[in-house]
Amino acid sequence: MTEHKNSEDYANLQQVQVRVRYADTDRMGIVYHANYLLFFESCRTELIRRVWKPYLQIEQEGYLLVVLEAHCRYRQSARYDDLLTVQGRVGFFTETRIRFEYQIFREGLKAPIVEGYTEHCWTDASGKPRRMPSELKDILKQAEITRHTDDRTANRRKRISADQA
Amino acid sequence: MTEHKNSEDYANLQQVQVRVRYADTDRMGIVYHANYLLFFESCRTELIRRVWKPYLQIEQEGYLLVVLEAHCRYRQSARYDDLLTVQGRVGFFTETRIRFEYQIFREGLKAPIVEGYTEHCWTDASGKPRRMPSELKDILKQAEITRHTDDRTANRRKRISADQA
Amino acid sequence: MTEHKNSEDYANLQQVQVRVRYADTDRMGIVYHANYLLFFESCRTELIRRVWKPYLQIEQEGYLLVVLEAHCRYRQSARYDDLLTVQGRVGFFTETRIRFEYQIFREGLKAPIVEGYTEHCWTDASGKPRRMPSELKDILKQAEITRHTDDRTANRRKRISADQA
Amino acid sequence: MTEHKNSEDYANLQQVQVRVRYADTDRMGIVYHANYLLFFESCRTELIRRVWKPYLQIEQEGYLLVVLEAHCRYRQSARYDDLLTVQGRVGFFTETRIRFEYQIFREGLKAPIVEGYTEHCWTDASGKPRRMPSELKDILKQAEITRHTDDRTANRRKRISADQA
Repeated sequence: MTEHKNSEDYANLQQVQVRVRYADTDRMGIVYHANYLLFFESCRTELIRRVWKPYLQIEQEGYLLVVLEAHCRYRQSARYDDLLTVQGRVGFFTETRIRFEYQIFREGLKAPIVEGYTEHCWTDASGKPRRMPSELKDILKQAEITRHTDDRTANRRKRISADQA
Repeated sequence: MTEHKNSEDYANLQQVQVRVRYADTDRMGIVYHANYLLFFESCRTELIRRVWKPYLQIEQEGYLLVVLEAHCRYRQSARYDDLLTVQGRVGFFTETRIRFEYQIFREGLKAPIVEGYTEHCWTDASGKPRRMPSELKDILKQAEITRHTDDRTANRRKRISADQA
Repeated sequence: MTEHKNSEDYANLQQVQVRVRYADTDRMGIVYHANYLLFFESCRTELIRRVWKPYLQIEQEGYLLVVLEAHCRYRQSARYDDLLTVQGRVGFFTETRIRFEYQIFREGLKAPIVEGYTEHCWTDASGKPRRMPSELKDILKQAEITRHTDDRTANRRKRISADQA
Repeated sequence: MTEHKNSEDYANLQQVQVRVRYADTDRMGIVYHANYLLFFESCRTELIRRVWKPYLQIEQEGYLLVVLEAHCRYRQSARYDDLLTVQGRVGFFTETRIRFEYQIFREGLKAPIVEGYTEHCWTDASGKPRRMPSELKDILKQAEITRHTDDRTANRRKRISADQA
């Protein structure tokens, strides 16, 4: 694992470990596909905590991160008692949106077993859209995370990466 | 199924049907044990709706039903795609508490496969204990649901039923 | 709702209703984003049952439908006790894959609150890829569901629909 | 935290930490009550691993631990991002059953916020009851865990502890 020194680094890579519980599996003997989104959440939460501050505190300051989109590609399956490594990073951001990208690894396999992303917008407590907190924007710039000037560019960029996938 | 005529009847018996999803199962091929509590919730919600009014509305009027205790006894297992019948009723109530009792049935089996109860207290939105809404109390009395004068009696009664179980 | 006469029709549209439970919500007061994938599952299961036969039976005959990809776009949120309508249809299929597309509606809103798809491949019980059962293929052809001759075409098509979205 | 030296000690106390996810909460802002059973599972799994061997391996050797009963008493609530400590131990065992007891602690609070137990029997892969593996029995005896000679005694004991609760 790489040494992290600055909070900016975590925007480019943060990882958590998740032990697969019986509760996470289904009758096929593998992790039920929706549960990977919960593993993504665990990783995203730690990433935000390291990069900036606890998401709980961010919410208390009047910023909510609402999920707009979620995507998962399942390449291999995870099984009961597997110790998974979930890696996440900030993919890109705009004034109002932020995208997190994830890869999940199983011990002994080089390639990720699951890949995905979630895209979020910022709102206030009443659900009204807000601009991203400027403090976080500065951190992401420092971390050299791609910033798109408007959401349409971001969407175009998204399509291009989908094409390359 | 018995004909219900008055809202009071539902306090003595309400049932809902639940189709077991892949998501509900675990690698043993059966419903993961914690998920029966979610089936109990579906039944409790409909019971409250029929007996009195939607729980959502009750909350909006400043009453929360907080879970104090939950119990499940697993006799047989339910499997993927089973169509389960969840029966619930109000077991007893005091000024501040209410207990719901549940039985889950699988097609073709006479005896319940799962039995359990949940016990709740009433609080206001801030979590401070409240007395049960008097309107509901009247309905439960009409339904001839056992009312305990104090919580200690309720607890003693509980132990007795545990002994008989 | 349109009248369905033949099993083929269900491949083009099947719907189920889902009541949002407390268990489905999160502290934002809305349905936790991963849970919509479980609502998709309920719809997919009924679609397969109507179009062909119970998925349980399909599994017993040695065919598993493994999830390869899942996507969700969240436009509006669903709340506790909402009665949601989940509509699903077969988007397209190839010799080895099948894609289901979903829309979730909330009472009183014309536009779907959530849209998504899941893509699956067929395997045998050991996880080895299999061709789609020919009986189902015939049904989907009858239903005039788009059939792609190879998976690459399917992928290209997918990108085009993403562009139009 | 006490120093553990022998595997037997873990039968008397094992603990794991669980970070509360958004996914674990409900619209009341607290952990949904059924989810504590999943926290119990995480603890039980680690307890069995430390006391004896991975449960996965036990299953591969033809022993399943089937849940017969689950109980939870909710004293305080846990909230999003809380770091909980789940403590578990073997309560007692008979030839065919085993009971695990749990307490969940929240930082800053001395008393457990949740207490509960799960009771299990041993079966073979087909679901037929089996006697407890003798190797585990020896470990539990070493650990001075109470052993009941028959299940009726165990039940009586259970009622007594319920009375004292």
